Amino acid sequence: MQNIITGTGSYIPTVIKKNEDFLSNEFYSEAKTKLPNANEVIIKKFKDITGIEERRYLEKNLKNSDIATYAAQQAIEKSKVNPEEIDYLIVAHNFGDVRHGHTDCDMLPSIASRVKHNLKIKNSNCVAYDVIFGCPGWVQGVIQADAFIKAGLAKKCLVIGSETLSRVVDPYDRDSMIYSDGAGACVIESNDTLKKGIIAHADQTFALDEVYYLFNGSSYNPNVSQDAQYIKMFGRKIYEFALTHVPLAMKVALDKSGIDIDQIKKVLIHQANEKMDEAIIERFYKLYGKDIPKGIMPMSIHKLGNSSVATVPTLLDLILNGALEDHEINEGDIILLASVGAGMNINALIYQV
Amino acid sequence: MQNIITGTGSYIPTVIKKNEDFLSNEFYSEAKTKLPNANEVIIKKFKDITGIEERRYLEKNLKNSDIATYAAQQAIEKSKVNPEEIDYLIVAHNFGDVRHGHTDCDMLPSIASRVKHNLKIKNSNCVAYDVIFGCPGWVQGVIQADAFIKAGLAKKCLVIGSETLSRVVDPYDRDSMIYSDGAGACVIESNDTLKKGIIAHADQTFALDEVYYLFNGSSYNPNVSQDAQYIKMFGRKIYEFALTHVPLAMKVALDKSGIDIDQIKKVLIHQANEKMDEAIIERFYKLYGKDIPKGIMPMSIHKLGNSSVATVPTLLDLILNGALEDHEINEGDIILLASVGAGMNINALIYQV
Repeated sequence: MQNIITGTGSYIPTVIKKNEDFLSNEFYSEAKTKLPNANEVIIKKFKDITGIEERRYLEKNLKNSDIATYAAQQAIEKSKVNPEEIDYLIVAHNFGDVRHGHTDCDMLPSIASRVKHNLKIKNSNCVAYDVIFGCPGWVQGVIQADAFIKAGLAKKCLVIGSETLSRVVDPYDRDSMIYSDGAGACVIESNDTLKKGIIAHADQTFALDEVYYLFNGSSYNPNVSQDAQYIKMFGRKIYEFALTHVPLAMKVALDKSGIDIDQIKKVLIHQANEKMDEAIIERFYKLYGKDIPKGIMPMSIHKLGNSSVATVPTLLDLILNGALEDHEINEGDIILLASVGAGMNINALIYQV
Repeated sequence: MQNIITGTGSYIPTVIKKNEDFLSNEFYSEAKTKLPNANEVIIKKFKDITGIEERRYLEKNLKNSDIATYAAQQAIEKSKVNPEEIDYLIVAHNFGDVRHGHTDCDMLPSIASRVKHNLKIKNSNCVAYDVIFGCPGWVQGVIQADAFIKAGLAKKCLVIGSETLSRVVDPYDRDSMIYSDGAGACVIESNDTLKKGIIAHADQTFALDEVYYLFNGSSYNPNVSQDAQYIKMFGRKIYEFALTHVPLAMKVALDKSGIDIDQIKKVLIHQANEKMDEAIIERFYKLYGKDIPKGIMPMSIHKLGNSSVATVPTLLDLILNGALEDHEINEGDIILLASVGAGMNINALIYQV
């Protein structure tokens, strides 16, 4: 018995924030001194490394739980599941609901409860909770839903990844250009007959030296209030960490699955940095003495940036809907999902469509 | 096979805040008008209903992840588990790490990652994540750990409930007197031989009219900044909600277990309000046509207040250590754990010691 994804959904905010929209920002370093280079140079270098040309910011009047709901509604519709039959409603996020113009997170009640409320689900046995696991939170939610079904606690689960990073970025930090908003979701159901579904996974937490590679910190501009806390990262350290550990976690999941690497049709990696993702996939294939197959790694980062927990489910939803140029996933295809982020956490999942 | 709790731990902050310490507070109503009664009257009524005489506030220099670590260290020590063999490290909370003098929550990285860091656990396969499920979060973490072991994902799990509500209370709201700080933890392990452990559970989320019975809101004092967000509740509605639904959830868990109600030795209920807990237990026994057995419901609320996710594991730890007068739990005893809180969430668990 392997549990299957019966429907996916996503929400891509309508506000487009282009690289050139940052031209008038004042950028400071981690040492809180003004960066010497012109913004044109900073932004060009940023684009060359990350691949990001533009990103999406949530409409001012909406909150994280709203877009989580929109993505969920699509996934429910596509799966044709009766919402009243959902046993677990799981939302992955890292900052809860953040009001526009504020940085404080609100998760009382949980975002999952808010989504359940928005979906008007009456069944009290639909248990709604949030999982906090950095950017890999959505994949982790899928792993948890899979476990609940295997343990006999559930038959149908809704797993959402939703984040509004635009509300927790320091405008004086060039890293803020990476972050984006969005939501993705899927319905997972038990399956006794079809030879498809979740085959294997790997999940890890590195919390020794790595624990604060991503963290909340004060503005890099020492002339503004140092009270508000913003998402901060040690980009170089994350890059090296990801290159070392993500390919190995992907290998653990693949080896557990017993599937040959040549059978993988697509690898959907968390969209954090194009150069990093390319280096990860190269190392992954090298672990098997292989070159990277052409077109194996769909990317959405150029236009959508890094929307944390939302990148992988959004990418999956776009491809399944034929909305990502040059990429398709068909019945029977083996795909590998992988993500890395704050914690530092890593996970990987082998799935047969 | 039933999974067993092999060790418990708790941390009770040293700062005692007595009821009389609130005598000079200015209390306002939900309608943001000054309460007409004298504080002596307000506090006496508060004490008569909730049973709370004093509560604990965290030392200024500590954070939620620190006390979560202390409780975890005790549980690890008692269980004699090798920390490097822990497969999942789960932390239930609702506000993350809150700095003294601030109200903004920080959970980047997750509290679980911070605890794993503090415990110096090297094994990257020890997966650390947070669960957000209101006050019932710790019991829910136990349910999740149990499921992971049943699904073959884990053999040993550490589940912590830790909260510092003193940092998110509105001093102008009389409900703030309910809240307290603390942490509780347990180690859960798979068990193939002993006839004991987790027998059955029930878990529920009510998110229609109930979803915002507990929420973040502005100060009741209209003369102070309305920007900061504090924990707020509709106490009367929660009281009625709990009386209606908690006994039924307890019955679901007990009936699933197949155990006779007379075999229950202790019922450990979330410590939110003494009168409410007494009414819940009365209704629970009434569902079976029974009177409440003497000494069935240990209470810690008088001296410890409501420390959210920490109340049930702290109560369990105190009793197992013989630190709660007139109450003991012995090998073979059947106990019932139950909790209710923001979401609105309810859960119940039948456990054989």
